[in-house]
Amino acid sequence: MNIVITGGAGFLGVRLARSLLAQGALSLAGQAPAPISRILLVDRAQPPADLLADGRVAAQVGDLNELLRPGPTGAPAVPADTQLVFHLAAAVSGECEADFDLGMRSNLDATRALLEACRALRTQPMVVFASSLAVFGKAPGQSLPDVIEDHTLPTPQSSYGIQKFIGEQLVADYARKGFVRGRNVRLMTVSVRPGRPNGAASSFLSGMIREPLAGLRAACPVPPDVAVALSSPGRTIDGLICAAQTADADWGPLTAMNLPALRTSVGDMAAALQRVGGPAASALLDWTPDPAIIRVVSTWPGHIAATRARALGLLPDPDFETIVRDYIRENPDAIRLPLHP
Amino acid sequence: MNIVITGGAGFLGVRLARSLLAQGALSLAGQAPAPISRILLVDRAQPPADLLADGRVAAQVGDLNELLRPGPTGAPAVPADTQLVFHLAAAVSGECEADFDLGMRSNLDATRALLEACRALRTQPMVVFASSLAVFGKAPGQSLPDVIEDHTLPTPQSSYGIQKFIGEQLVADYARKGFVRGRNVRLMTVSVRPGRPNGAASSFLSGMIREPLAGLRAACPVPPDVAVALSSPGRTIDGLICAAQTADADWGPLTAMNLPALRTSVGDMAAALQRVGGPAASALLDWTPDPAIIRVVSTWPGHIAATRARALGLLPDPDFETIVRDYIRENPDAIRLPLHP
Repeated sequence: MNIVITGGAGFLGVRLARSLLAQGALSLAGQAPAPISRILLVDRAQPPADLLADGRVAAQVGDLNELLRPGPTGAPAVPADTQLVFHLAAAVSGECEADFDLGMRSNLDATRALLEACRALRTQPMVVFASSLAVFGKAPGQSLPDVIEDHTLPTPQSSYGIQKFIGEQLVADYARKGFVRGRNVRLMTVSVRPGRPNGAASSFLSGMIREPLAGLRAACPVPPDVAVALSSPGRTIDGLICAAQTADADWGPLTAMNLPALRTSVGDMAAALQRVGGPAASALLDWTPDPAIIRVVSTWPGHIAATRARALGLLPDPDFETIVRDYIRENPDAIRLPLHP
Repeated sequence: MNIVITGGAGFLGVRLARSLLAQGALSLAGQAPAPISRILLVDRAQPPADLLADGRVAAQVGDLNELLRPGPTGAPAVPADTQLVFHLAAAVSGECEADFDLGMRSNLDATRALLEACRALRTQPMVVFASSLAVFGKAPGQSLPDVIEDHTLPTPQSSYGIQKFIGEQLVADYARKGFVRGRNVRLMTVSVRPGRPNGAASSFLSGMIREPLAGLRAACPVPPDVAVALSSPGRTIDGLICAAQTADADWGPLTAMNLPALRTSVGDMAAALQRVGGPAASALLDWTPDPAIIRVVSTWPGHIAATRARALGLLPDPDFETIVRDYIRENPDAIRLPLHP
């Protein structure tokens, strides 16, 4: 089994690679398990050295559009023997809103070029496309349904959401045509992400936990009552691997599947932080509204039903405190505050 | 008021131009009526001479992607003083299914290039995008809702439908960003089209009336019980002009609006033909199933609710016989059979 992960040096890409390497084999679309012989990490950044030290891991570093451009320019981003592609690479929501052309290039053009590269193999590789809950958005003067279902019409209110939704359509049609096998998966906001803030409008939903636990100040740019739909990194990776492993008939239509989301609010997240890190942690939060972030985040739905995912055994995280404690356990070096057990 | 019509030499483009010239002025998005000073017809084909004889009409003949390519290559397809663009140009459904790359180029790339040309003007011109009921489709093993509403999630089952649905998303985001003003309008199958068959899978829905009335044999490639959602040419043009003239607040969201559809069936259409043209007309129909056409057409919905359009006063045609008699009145030279009054 030869796998490509675009965005393979990013947080989710690296974690996905580690999970795949640990499980060692993969049952592609319900077929018999096959040992994972190669994972090619395609990214603008170099993957971590310890991951590259695994003999099954290779890397291609560069701009995805450039790497996918046809022509005899070195090793292909999608080698001929690739059976499975996880397409995680994307410019994030804040970036795409600030730089429309960057988003179109990074998200729309690159996704199309990736699908063309897969089509050119003529072997119908599986493409698992990481779409996003950002396809859902409340338009000005409109309302969202109380509960977002898999069959709810997305009305994206960000260029990032539009580009992801277009990506879903492309994956569905390339799959319908038999050029690839397709899995459209909508990721929820992933929290708690380790590392550093990124340009996503949702970046603070990790930072407001990660920074205080590291003894650093963090911004809460939206009011506490803002509802959010979250998934831990672990459950998010479970969803991506499940998509690749589930047989076509069990997976269902080519339209996108919502991954499970924990329903919580920014205020409840802050309360969980206080239960785990005490008043010292809460005191590091700055509740300073940022209209640009509020504008994007407040258009996102807080209640997403993942009916199709549930039927596959994928469940939301039980509560946010569990997510925080998982983060602490997985990232001991990032914790500087004394904790409450 | 300077207007561009892409696909302006096609049947709908020509008819739209004639209607606009006849009305003389246009109230763009509810503003005060402004006289129509120029209509630029952009098409691969030359528009009819009598239309070009009108001093307000100009033409640009060529491939839309080529005409829109930036560079100092003659007159721009979207001149700087354009206030309104009707984007009708498209490769049709049958063509796009047979030639995937043609469809992506003609429908996706050209729509994006057109939006970029409009954005480059920095004057926020209005773009009325002719989407299609073909965005709706019944996937294998899935069912469609009994009634398709404006907010029903499209699951296109043709590349044409996917490309039109992506076009809707692009128009919505370019409008949300303030690059253009946007109107997404879903056209129903237009029948009876005059002229010749085209590559659309729905072409027979005009041919089965037009050809017998001209004394020619015509194919009915689907069973009589196939339900179809139709609109006459006249009502279709009414919908396009209404989209341009309706104020933003009355129009509502940037998501696409279904135009009204007459609910009928292929068998009912044949019955109307017989009532108008007698047994001599019916005898010219060949009921020869074509699996390729059945495959596409049978995924389309027969019952489309046009709730938003109805609120704007747009109504479906009253019945199919009226549509047939309208066609006969408008195309007297195309009739060769003796008719029943």
